[in-house]
Amino acid sequence: MSDITELSIAELSQGFRDKSLSPVAAAEAYLARISTHNDRVNAFVTLRADEALAEAKEAEAEIAGGNWRGPLHGIPIGHKDLYQTAGIRSTAGSRVLENDIPNEDATAVARLKAAGAVMLGKLNTHEYAYGPTNDSSMFGPCRNPWDNSRFSGGSSGGSGAAVALRLCAGATGSDTGGSIRMPAACCGITGLKPTYGRSSRAGIYPLCWTMDHAGPLTRSAEDAALMYQPLPGPDGRDATVADRPVPDYAGALDGNIKGLKIGVPTHYFFDRALPENETAAREAIAVLEGLGAEVREVDIAHIDYAAAAAMVLYLSEGTAYHDDHIATIGELYTDQVRLFLELGNYVLAKDYLHAQRYRTLLGHAMADVLAEVDVLAMPALPLTAQPIGQEMIDIRGQSESVFGAILRNTEPFDLTGLPALVMPCGFASDGMPLSLQIAGRPFDEAGILKVGHAFQQATDWHKRRPPD
Amino acid sequence: MSDITELSIAELSQGFRDKSLSPVAAAEAYLARISTHNDRVNAFVTLRADEALAEAKEAEAEIAGGNWRGPLHGIPIGHKDLYQTAGIRSTAGSRVLENDIPNEDATAVARLKAAGAVMLGKLNTHEYAYGPTNDSSMFGPCRNPWDNSRFSGGSSGGSGAAVALRLCAGATGSDTGGSIRMPAACCGITGLKPTYGRSSRAGIYPLCWTMDHAGPLTRSAEDAALMYQPLPGPDGRDATVADRPVPDYAGALDGNIKGLKIGVPTHYFFDRALPENETAAREAIAVLEGLGAEVREVDIAHIDYAAAAAMVLYLSEGTAYHDDHIATIGELYTDQVRLFLELGNYVLAKDYLHAQRYRTLLGHAMADVLAEVDVLAMPALPLTAQPIGQEMIDIRGQSESVFGAILRNTEPFDLTGLPALVMPCGFASDGMPLSLQIAGRPFDEAGILKVGHAFQQATDWHKRRPPD
Repeated sequence: MSDITELSIAELSQGFRDKSLSPVAAAEAYLARISTHNDRVNAFVTLRADEALAEAKEAEAEIAGGNWRGPLHGIPIGHKDLYQTAGIRSTAGSRVLENDIPNEDATAVARLKAAGAVMLGKLNTHEYAYGPTNDSSMFGPCRNPWDNSRFSGGSSGGSGAAVALRLCAGATGSDTGGSIRMPAACCGITGLKPTYGRSSRAGIYPLCWTMDHAGPLTRSAEDAALMYQPLPGPDGRDATVADRPVPDYAGALDGNIKGLKIGVPTHYFFDRALPENETAAREAIAVLEGLGAEVREVDIAHIDYAAAAAMVLYLSEGTAYHDDHIATIGELYTDQVRLFLELGNYVLAKDYLHAQRYRTLLGHAMADVLAEVDVLAMPALPLTAQPIGQEMIDIRGQSESVFGAILRNTEPFDLTGLPALVMPCGFASDGMPLSLQIAGRPFDEAGILKVGHAFQQATDWHKRRPPD
Repeated sequence: MSDITELSIAELSQGFRDKSLSPVAAAEAYLARISTHNDRVNAFVTLRADEALAEAKEAEAEIAGGNWRGPLHGIPIGHKDLYQTAGIRSTAGSRVLENDIPNEDATAVARLKAAGAVMLGKLNTHEYAYGPTNDSSMFGPCRNPWDNSRFSGGSSGGSGAAVALRLCAGATGSDTGGSIRMPAACCGITGLKPTYGRSSRAGIYPLCWTMDHAGPLTRSAEDAALMYQPLPGPDGRDATVADRPVPDYAGALDGNIKGLKIGVPTHYFFDRALPENETAAREAIAVLEGLGAEVREVDIAHIDYAAAAAMVLYLSEGTAYHDDHIATIGELYTDQVRLFLELGNYVLAKDYLHAQRYRTLLGHAMADVLAEVDVLAMPALPLTAQPIGQEMIDIRGQSESVFGAILRNTEPFDLTGLPALVMPCGFASDGMPLSLQIAGRPFDEAGILKVGHAFQQATDWHKRRPPD
């Protein structure tokens, strides 16, 4: 093994446990890569080298003492700066919080800490997670590790870039319109948006309460299963979390998808995607079919209104959260986020409620389809990562905003709260990763991780790394 | 026994079961009273005399054949016309639905039918349940059985008047700001607003989805327990209903409240009530103390903003439901309801969300208090039933709208979803009933019914009837 940072969380974990690998060595290797590679992507915005090394030493000592906490013990990770971290600056990418040091960890941070993960630092995010492609972070844009002139996707762009470029083994993200899955797809890694209500968002700055989800970005479905494992389950700080049994996610990855029914909704998800995105997704679905899955076309009613409904919800809830600040310290926000927050002042309550009612319709339509098939498969995005600052794109002869296009295939699953996994499945002629999205039934994270793992056992797209 | 309509549901039920009383005789007696007394209150707006008699005969035959369905078998009831009834005109009090005959029963109607209840007809309601005192029904106002120049309360005014005047043994109602409890209090009967999420609202026209509750109006807490029993539990037609065990409500009425902790929130509920309403509530609480309960004063944080938040929610959700109709057939609505629905066009999404966030604050404040006491007790209303058309009232030297005053003590429990029971506890110098409200912890309908039953065993206010 040339470099310990090439290893998966599963491999690291096995090595730490049997003491063939050292958590301290892993932390040192990641910190070394951060020092040489972070500048070109701008992923880590707060580094805690000494503290992380201390945590790695403590993990190594605990394991040596026979106190192995589990698969995340000693694993070096990063947290999206939208997550509050006790005693560590947590900016949400905004000058509003430039010097803010929370007293308490986000529940996800606390649970990953309790599982023994080592925190290398905090990762770049769009200002308060607002906007999937725009450059609104107070730290400047996070760049794509495959081509530094392109965006990394967002708003968990720092998480996507850092995991792809091996600056950490896994990272947390949050997803309101696609903010875990867009950077995962743009950077060629695996991202899991869990079911709404599966795990806590407490201590993560909200963008849109009724659509915010928190989950991991990793280099494989197996790593996502390991990293997500400690997160589900009730939290007194987030009343939306369901109290239901938590499965063994890694244990569900048996590679057997024989007879699995895959629904392919061609309308909306394929017919408005760039041809290379369509082709790569179809080829990936053919791989799943080759593994024994049954593939059929399905049609999801009402889906054409998803973008309009989602925009009304972002604008309404975003402004409801920020309006006191906009009125008093509005000048601290970037112009583009302030514009969104001011626009939200003009959304009517009845329009917000129409958008919420639409979600119910769309949810029923998805439930109808998922009564017939086990999962849905489609391109994660209808486009590839574009140059930073490019506002428009032509897709099949139609010019549209990059902002609108990049959200198209991910936000239906924020609206409906269904779990969705994205993972790489090829490269476009522009050199950018192409990705497949697998969405599942409510609370069936295990099911979609299993599909992802089966695909990744049969292919090696998830092992491709951007050049150093 | 002079009149079978004097009997409680519990007494009727026992008589039907042991065949000492006849469901047919009961239906006939109620129908006779409707024919002689309904005109002066305008409670029943659709009567089904022949069909009800047929149902009573069927019930009598089933019981004679050994097939007693339970305590509601053969009990003559009425349904608020907001409830959809298959094959029976269901107007919601509005000319919009003047000739509307639904194909399906509301879930509550279907469950009461399955329990064997006999449906005498449909009961007057304010137009789409909008407004607690105004005269918006297409059928004209429902009048108070104690003084026909006064309102019966609303929006379930027909249910309140009919049960008080012995036109039916029990009736369904719905409660968004107090629409079960206000008419129960105005008419001197018992009304139960259950916990939000305890039972289905499917097939009941909505006023405000996030605050609408459905429950019974009866002449005693024991009758409320019997009538509510079939209603809780999951319903595929209403996703908000919780799947949790349903207790035996009547079985919980053991009369023993020794050691029960009663919290009395004097601020807001007492200090802005007419002196007679305050005094009667305090005397009723003293009765409960005499039965062994421990009484202490409590203070509920944030409660002063309840009315403002509730109004924003009614306006927003009401308009979101009706706006298509307002735009196309607006002339069918009464002026006063159309005004509310048009006002709702000007509420902003962020204000709606601020109101929803306030509910969370108020819910936490109530939970804090209900961690220290078992139930809360206060006057059901800060005023008595006023003359129809009277718009303003002086309470402790302050002039305010009757509309605002009558909602004050009930709507905090719609905002928080907590269960609340009202029951008569005296009469004011104007001859109108005075009532006590008992609110409880989430899903503790059994607890508040038990308090109500203990009070009614020790007193006889609930046995007072308006003069014929």
